[in-house]
Amino acid sequence: MYIGIDLGGTNIAAGIVSEDGKLLAQGSVPTQSGRPTGEIVRDMAELSMRIAEENGIKMRDIKGIGIGCPGTIDHDTGVVVYSNNIKMDHYPLVDEFRKYTDLPISVDNDANCAALGEYVVNGNGADSFLLITLGTGVGSGLVINGRLFRGFNGVAPEAGHMTLVSGGEMCTCGKAGCWEAYASVTALIRQTKAAIEKHPESLMAKDVEERGKVSGRTAFDCAKAGDEAAQQVVDNYVRYVADGIVSMENILQPDMIAIGGGISREGEYLLEPVKKYVAEAGYNKFMKKTRIVTATLFNEAGIIGAAMTAKFDI
Amino acid sequence: MYIGIDLGGTNIAAGIVSEDGKLLAQGSVPTQSGRPTGEIVRDMAELSMRIAEENGIKMRDIKGIGIGCPGTIDHDTGVVVYSNNIKMDHYPLVDEFRKYTDLPISVDNDANCAALGEYVVNGNGADSFLLITLGTGVGSGLVINGRLFRGFNGVAPEAGHMTLVSGGEMCTCGKAGCWEAYASVTALIRQTKAAIEKHPESLMAKDVEERGKVSGRTAFDCAKAGDEAAQQVVDNYVRYVADGIVSMENILQPDMIAIGGGISREGEYLLEPVKKYVAEAGYNKFMKKTRIVTATLFNEAGIIGAAMTAKFDI
Repeated sequence: MYIGIDLGGTNIAAGIVSEDGKLLAQGSVPTQSGRPTGEIVRDMAELSMRIAEENGIKMRDIKGIGIGCPGTIDHDTGVVVYSNNIKMDHYPLVDEFRKYTDLPISVDNDANCAALGEYVVNGNGADSFLLITLGTGVGSGLVINGRLFRGFNGVAPEAGHMTLVSGGEMCTCGKAGCWEAYASVTALIRQTKAAIEKHPESLMAKDVEERGKVSGRTAFDCAKAGDEAAQQVVDNYVRYVADGIVSMENILQPDMIAIGGGISREGEYLLEPVKKYVAEAGYNKFMKKTRIVTATLFNEAGIIGAAMTAKFDI
Repeated sequence: MYIGIDLGGTNIAAGIVSEDGKLLAQGSVPTQSGRPTGEIVRDMAELSMRIAEENGIKMRDIKGIGIGCPGTIDHDTGVVVYSNNIKMDHYPLVDEFRKYTDLPISVDNDANCAALGEYVVNGNGADSFLLITLGTGVGSGLVINGRLFRGFNGVAPEAGHMTLVSGGEMCTCGKAGCWEAYASVTALIRQTKAAIEKHPESLMAKDVEERGKVSGRTAFDCAKAGDEAAQQVVDNYVRYVADGIVSMENILQPDMIAIGGGISREGEYLLEPVKKYVAEAGYNKFMKKTRIVTATLFNEAGIIGAAMTAKFDI
């Protein structure tokens, strides 16, 4: 068994995970981002031990602890080189965590962990597996031959920061036209707001008046209810998503691409037009084609994947 | 020693290559594309044996033969699934070649071979190495841990067919907005022609009148001579090249990216602005950065790389 910890900006989620990636027990506490990082690490350790204890699992049966963390991680040294969400700058996370345990500890980027988690549970042994997460940003993780591909410096893959519209919308990363600036939920909300301004008569405008805010679901919900302006937003958004997916497929030809993140809960309503676009626009006309699926683990992927990085590191 | 064969639309080039990637002898004959493919294969075999004989190399000292071929190649079965340049459709190239030799034979995509050749000679043991070739199209080959990465189906990587301008110029592959439709020499020529039409007073217009045609060098040569319209073409083109390079760097974070193909002969004049853009726009702000260089082998990369695929396959 392994402990996996998903360190998020809002919550620390942790769980006990079996050798084959089953989540046996889990729990969470608020991150309270902004306080001294040492306190957050202490809470991560205490949460882990409490979950084990409450579920009658002895720490001596745990083989290692894996942590998934947003930002740029130096997996080899266990240092969080930079994280914006939890404000860490060259923070020696693994060394700090060692104060509480003698177990092997590893830390990796949260998107990498999520990819490894999805791969272990749903990858069917794919020889190359790409997870794309459509959330606040567009995250990505790549598993090749059962191991995470991190590039030569641990930063890869950042598919969200490939250019999709050269010279287009500015991205938070400082470059113009990133895929993330078109296909993230943040981008979808921006696109929805623009459409509402243009179509004050639309169902979206009424919906937002009732609910008080625009969300990533506004356009999808209103499109399903027959709103034409909303359908236009969804069609454009799906096209941006699909255009990036087809790019990644052309570049890597992975055995499988899984789409995760909040928007992926739309299921076939998102997946079907994406698959149609990719089938028409993909470069590969002659050989076996990449399977495109929706991710299934949602929030559990991070915990399971973090635990699996510990397993594969030992 | 190995024999490497670079099967192009115009010429069949072949050479004898040492274990460490040195080109010891070479020669070529016209492909005469359009005739029965069996004749082309016969010429490939005869050329190989003639080069060996003329250089006093005995065929029993050759350990294998590697062939680089444009198109979609099934490396595992030795079948050219589809090649447009030399008109092959599910052609069993390796089986056909076996009529002439008992040596191990392998075939791979020509861009893959070029990448492996550049990697062996100039990669300095990089743990991940990407070659981008700016030619008629935009080719790419990726070497990870000393071996070619081909995706799960042998088609990867096709970086030229990632989207750079969503909904933009149509590409020959059938998708809109591919990098290739902006950064290939073909695209540069199109961009140059458009600028000449807009600026009939430019040096480019005079240059083309004298030489009789627009080439990939027109804009670069005229920009160096101080033509403002040409400089604009070069600036835009370089930006398209750089925007794709930064995308590939963000996605893969390879140790090294080499830029090859005819345009790469511009050397620092192309490389310097590309590197500047990548340094400013790249996602990775904190870890070691990808080295970007121009390829050095030019036409020899294909022969050397083809020979090296044979070496690594045995």
